[in-house]
Amino acid sequence: MEILNVELGNRSYPIYIGQDLLQKPELLIPHIHGDSALIVSNETVAPLYLQQVSAHLSKIRHGNSILPDGEKYKNLDELNQVFSDLLEQRQNRQTTLIALGGGVVGDMTGFAAASYQRGVAFIQIPTTLLAQVDSSVGGKTGVNHALGKNMIGAFHQPQCVIIDTDTLDTLEDRQLYAGLAEIIKYGLIIDAEFFAWLEDNLDALLARDKTALAYAIRRSCEIKANVVAADELEKGQRALLNFGHTFGHAIETATGYGSWLHGEAVGCGMLLAAELSTQMGWLAPEDLQRTRRLIERSHLPINPPTDMSVNQFLELMAVDKKVLDGQLRLVLLKSIGKAVVNTDFSTEKLKRCLQQATRAA
Amino acid sequence: MEILNVELGNRSYPIYIGQDLLQKPELLIPHIHGDSALIVSNETVAPLYLQQVSAHLSKIRHGNSILPDGEKYKNLDELNQVFSDLLEQRQNRQTTLIALGGGVVGDMTGFAAASYQRGVAFIQIPTTLLAQVDSSVGGKTGVNHALGKNMIGAFHQPQCVIIDTDTLDTLEDRQLYAGLAEIIKYGLIIDAEFFAWLEDNLDALLARDKTALAYAIRRSCEIKANVVAADELEKGQRALLNFGHTFGHAIETATGYGSWLHGEAVGCGMLLAAELSTQMGWLAPEDLQRTRRLIERSHLPINPPTDMSVNQFLELMAVDKKVLDGQLRLVLLKSIGKAVVNTDFSTEKLKRCLQQATRAA
Repeated sequence: MEILNVELGNRSYPIYIGQDLLQKPELLIPHIHGDSALIVSNETVAPLYLQQVSAHLSKIRHGNSILPDGEKYKNLDELNQVFSDLLEQRQNRQTTLIALGGGVVGDMTGFAAASYQRGVAFIQIPTTLLAQVDSSVGGKTGVNHALGKNMIGAFHQPQCVIIDTDTLDTLEDRQLYAGLAEIIKYGLIIDAEFFAWLEDNLDALLARDKTALAYAIRRSCEIKANVVAADELEKGQRALLNFGHTFGHAIETATGYGSWLHGEAVGCGMLLAAELSTQMGWLAPEDLQRTRRLIERSHLPINPPTDMSVNQFLELMAVDKKVLDGQLRLVLLKSIGKAVVNTDFSTEKLKRCLQQATRAA
Repeated sequence: MEILNVELGNRSYPIYIGQDLLQKPELLIPHIHGDSALIVSNETVAPLYLQQVSAHLSKIRHGNSILPDGEKYKNLDELNQVFSDLLEQRQNRQTTLIALGGGVVGDMTGFAAASYQRGVAFIQIPTTLLAQVDSSVGGKTGVNHALGKNMIGAFHQPQCVIIDTDTLDTLEDRQLYAGLAEIIKYGLIIDAEFFAWLEDNLDALLARDKTALAYAIRRSCEIKANVVAADELEKGQRALLNFGHTFGHAIETATGYGSWLHGEAVGCGMLLAAELSTQMGWLAPEDLQRTRRLIERSHLPINPPTDMSVNQFLELMAVDKKVLDGQLRLVLLKSIGKAVVNTDFSTEKLKRCLQQATRAA
């Protein structure tokens, strides 16, 4: 087992990474505050792992809240169900929420914890590759609004994150690929060496080799933890983590949350951002090729949805959180391993990229 | 005009108290962040004051979100409408929300600001006496859940609070009385001298004498600001501010939010808490009489709703946020001007108080 510390002053917390961790109550129990807990999971994950986690809680009062599975349920209505469960079970301000599932469960549980009785503790047990490398680090929590993704939420840090790589055994292929998108992102924005490692080891990752997966997860969490520690509330550098996301969120919003997985939309979005970076004369054409090749090899979509127009992209990108004083900011690449937040991109070039991509789709 | 500073480190903010303040853009404008704003108000207050406030914002992009009036609309559904308005108006992370109305508008706007795009700025312009002396100080924001009041929310401090005592001219009598309940509370829990001042000046307050009102508002805000500065997140002393509220919330929840005003429920709740304090042998019977007399003179109800049973009280009080590790905590009085948080009260005596009160009702 490896332990990675996310350094955030008095909100610091450990990430445990390894095999068989769900069987270790000694990781979970010390982080539970008070004498009650609520496990939040979904209809897919609960049958697989709920009992194991529940068994560790035999000495404290605890209950469950089981959500339907999928991004389209990440909204205020379903969140209200978690509050109902908490209140029906008389859980008080000293309770601890435990998120057992993918990114949707993690984001919703975190926001429920941030706002239940104005803030209670929570623990993350991410069971998808994407949640393990992305949403379990950084304290961003929230739900979607019909008019925009992740528009309602809070910054709320967990007590700890338990990443049991054995949970990846039960993951659908498509979910595995979606997780790879965020892993590739860390290489692209910050770490050229890690990108090269991914090129060399992608086949092992696709074959679910545990050693390769554990390394990719650890390195991803490490990169994200460093960025977040330097800029918890996203005043600056943290925005680099949104590489590919402004395009990706537009795809997710246009397709109604769920027909595209978040990682799939980010995969396609990263390629669009890389293409614009090349058009700007920054990213060398051969590095654009390497990017496209790695995304393709990860079985991620390289073209946007067939029915999305350039105007729809531009409309939806304009409501993105990265819009500052009316000015769209995009994260673009200077090279593999070096991203910048940029407002000076040419709108003409952006349109041209979107035209090419939507035509190819 | 008086200026009171709420000292909370880098979240400190000023409260402006005086007449004619809505006419002073110089109070509002410096606290607006970014270049856009959303005024949140309700159907009662907007026709009276929206135009005045709007006029100050002519130089920035701004819009409105007008909610229905009443505690029963303080829920996640109506909150979602504020998010919809923000998104439809393309308001970004640099926007400032302005709460123009009573406690419901203030609590909802504050929580909308806390959670829109994970946190934007907001300004309070409270227009009811209760909001001016209570919800505008302390950063508690939130909405109700069908199973419990204020169960969903966040701590989020405003940029400033503008209390224009002229707005009290348009207040219904019943709303004025409800505000007096919270003012009386400050005397009872912390300041015996202020309580005596209220006994002497209640007729002036009921006659809406501006000087008397301004003093009562300032002293109330001052007391609350001091308590909050010492204990922002309610780990200890701040709980004293909940005097009468555990009983009061039970009344509000039982009656479905809105048939009793918050201040009315608190008025009745304070009397119940005072009666229990006397039964415990703490509050002298003559001080219980003074308490009852001041609450009665303020036209506040002294008996709970006729259809509430002792068991219903006990049930609803058990889900209150002040329950710690399954143990109900009540704020009780040692004397006028001295409250304590207590878990040792006799449950028998609590039941006897509730029996007497529900029988009298």
